[in-house]
Amino acid sequence: MLSEKIIKNLEKIVGKPYISQKKEDLLCYSYDATQLMYLPEAVIFPNSAQKIAEILKLANQYRFPVVPRGAGSGMSGGAVPIRNGVVLAMNRLNRILEIDEKNMWVWVEPGVVTGDLQKTVAEKGLFYPPDPASLSFCTIGGNVAECAGGPRAVKYGVTKDYVLALEVVLPTGEIIHTGHKTIKGVTGYDLTSLFIGSEGTLGVFTKILLRLLPLPPTKATILLNLPRLNLLSSLLEQFLHLAERPAAMEFVDDLCRACIEHQIQFALPPGEGLLLLETDGSPEIVELMLEKITKIAKQTGAEVVTIERGEKADQLWEIRRSISPAVFQLGSEKSSHDIVVPCAQILPMIEKIKQIRNKWKLPVLCFGHIGDGNLHVNIMYNSGDISKAEAVTEEVIRVTLALGGTITGEHGIGLTKARFLPWEIEPNTLKVMQKIKCTLDPNNILNSGKIFLEEKT
Amino acid sequence: MLSEKIIKNLEKIVGKPYISQKKEDLLCYSYDATQLMYLPEAVIFPNSAQKIAEILKLANQYRFPVVPRGAGSGMSGGAVPIRNGVVLAMNRLNRILEIDEKNMWVWVEPGVVTGDLQKTVAEKGLFYPPDPASLSFCTIGGNVAECAGGPRAVKYGVTKDYVLALEVVLPTGEIIHTGHKTIKGVTGYDLTSLFIGSEGTLGVFTKILLRLLPLPPTKATILLNLPRLNLLSSLLEQFLHLAERPAAMEFVDDLCRACIEHQIQFALPPGEGLLLLETDGSPEIVELMLEKITKIAKQTGAEVVTIERGEKADQLWEIRRSISPAVFQLGSEKSSHDIVVPCAQILPMIEKIKQIRNKWKLPVLCFGHIGDGNLHVNIMYNSGDISKAEAVTEEVIRVTLALGGTITGEHGIGLTKARFLPWEIEPNTLKVMQKIKCTLDPNNILNSGKIFLEEKT
Repeated sequence: MLSEKIIKNLEKIVGKPYISQKKEDLLCYSYDATQLMYLPEAVIFPNSAQKIAEILKLANQYRFPVVPRGAGSGMSGGAVPIRNGVVLAMNRLNRILEIDEKNMWVWVEPGVVTGDLQKTVAEKGLFYPPDPASLSFCTIGGNVAECAGGPRAVKYGVTKDYVLALEVVLPTGEIIHTGHKTIKGVTGYDLTSLFIGSEGTLGVFTKILLRLLPLPPTKATILLNLPRLNLLSSLLEQFLHLAERPAAMEFVDDLCRACIEHQIQFALPPGEGLLLLETDGSPEIVELMLEKITKIAKQTGAEVVTIERGEKADQLWEIRRSISPAVFQLGSEKSSHDIVVPCAQILPMIEKIKQIRNKWKLPVLCFGHIGDGNLHVNIMYNSGDISKAEAVTEEVIRVTLALGGTITGEHGIGLTKARFLPWEIEPNTLKVMQKIKCTLDPNNILNSGKIFLEEKT
Repeated sequence: MLSEKIIKNLEKIVGKPYISQKKEDLLCYSYDATQLMYLPEAVIFPNSAQKIAEILKLANQYRFPVVPRGAGSGMSGGAVPIRNGVVLAMNRLNRILEIDEKNMWVWVEPGVVTGDLQKTVAEKGLFYPPDPASLSFCTIGGNVAECAGGPRAVKYGVTKDYVLALEVVLPTGEIIHTGHKTIKGVTGYDLTSLFIGSEGTLGVFTKILLRLLPLPPTKATILLNLPRLNLLSSLLEQFLHLAERPAAMEFVDDLCRACIEHQIQFALPPGEGLLLLETDGSPEIVELMLEKITKIAKQTGAEVVTIERGEKADQLWEIRRSISPAVFQLGSEKSSHDIVVPCAQILPMIEKIKQIRNKWKLPVLCFGHIGDGNLHVNIMYNSGDISKAEAVTEEVIRVTLALGGTITGEHGIGLTKARFLPWEIEPNTLKVMQKIKCTLDPNNILNSGKIFLEEKT
């Protein structure tokens, strides 16, 4: 599909060293964190908005597909080139351009690794809160494209709450600028928010202005054991109604606990789940929060297993982080879902998951950010059980929607959730989204075939 | 322009008592808080999304303009029917539909008065933070349409930070539902944010789901005197870099101070400006914040005039609230601008305003939400000086943009700022906005002629 002529033109735009059709390169840019894999016909490494604009103009002229790609850490197939064509690798646009300490913002290029950004601004006493699990390798561009979240969303919100302004190359090759340098700003439509979470289908980000906060001077983590799962509703309600909000509230169910229990350096009392809370801010406030959390836990019947302050607080997070690799004890394959339900429906959701687990006799487990209702449901199976796993997926999605939830909180629709999108969103609303896509990308060049189910061209 | 036939059809939709062409009614719906006034040809009072859908379908069939209107408290002419046609009065859609205390959200109709909502949810220990100055009469629908702000934005953000989901009637009459009941949710494009701040040009809101917070148990207000204006930069920087943020930070300049000084019940030391800070939360935290604020103030050279706690804290706000009426001492007419600059540019902006004041010999004053860079600049003049006031306006806008700011933080573009929008936003970006308008409203029915400068049809 990519003719010699197109390749020559692309070479002219980026220079010969920055385009590849070698099989080994194509393989490297064919997948993401799902198990999906489609080979592109070429990978191209532009280093400016101008060059990306030229590439997209060429793509419109010759009608070849272009798929922007950050670190390939996406969980829904968003960066997978299902229609082949060109993968636009954003690796070279990886500079932190300007940190403004007084105004507390930073201009970055999309290829900056999220964790690197956090470390760099922390050295100046500043804080970029969004913390997706992949932060040591995922990039800001991908975070903005998917509106990434993380444990801290319960207090600090998600990526969209930190994006002030964008430079975007439109699918048709025009370069535009959206947003403001200020929190307030109502000049015309909020295009910034429209591009955030658009999964690379509406434009390619080339510069991103992020709002920063003062780095919290201290933090503490508290691990609670739930002797009975049904304490969860009351605990959650009380924690969320505190005048000041914990920074994170993570849940670990019985199956996950069983997978990691041997790695924990202290004994856990018997129980049906764990809760890990973090609180941050001025030292006096952190202590006050620990006091309040401990009191609520004890009065409600949960046990305080341990409290860690300062850097030691991070160690407790190892428990939470060790879950994802550990669950492969229960099956060689994983079908992963990041559903969200209203907080009062968290306990009913977890109970439903247990029923589904028993009904299908598959290890269906859950953990995650219950402070904002965002549960990671993992269906573990062996390759023979794929159709069973698919049936369980459908059931999990249906229960989520029946409880007033949404099918994805931070991973996006991409390819893996596209068939479920119409289960959640009614046709008239979907039509508006598709009209916007069509308006901005009339030739369906940019990351086409994602989000919306459509005929494969 | 509205034929007998159209009126008959409208009557069929809403019932005869709910449409009026009486001169006195038309007058009541011809204006907003600007001094602009255009008579509509009819005012219609629908009470359901279905009826609004039918009205808009009829409008597309017969091509008459429709202008949605909340309380008419807008500051930029957004609800003024410049092309006559029909004003869609949202007064009857004024119910608080459902308060969910556990999940901390509320479903409202657009005609609910913001202050009434705040009081109702406060009785249940809940908090709706956005606090536009007009909160005792403005409505949530208008707040969402303009993305209203207020003093508390510095800690709590603006209206868009509280809107979870919308029911919207599109300009072509389809009813859609956007958003999620949860903070996280990335299913398709963020249409909710696209509609927020769209100034009634993209759709009519018929149901709004708002996120609530726990009501802060206590608050305190502290009034600072600035012996010299140039302390402001350092104070602001230190306050914004505190680990916990004050709930509000309001500035009052020398001219405003002079207008209200006689109303204040205590003596003010000589000075070039006032700063009013509010802090809220748990009592221990409020005390800690007062301590930190006092320390910074003293070290920097500002004087603590008074501190008030609890209900008395509201009394200090009278000082701030009394400014708007008091400034008419300085001129019978007011040209009002809600510009925003990055916080480090606040002092340069205020100094520029003083230069402009001296250059044009007009009382140009400023006050407002400096914690988020949002200054209300008021040009006071008498009717003979209108062209001078317009020249000053242009200069204020130019200085704002030169300092990296934006021309409106919470009032919107509407009519009064439409000619300045292209000064801030480049043509390619404006074109995207206009394409979206055209996609959703192909016949240019809904609040046409707002935001974007265009030929009057």
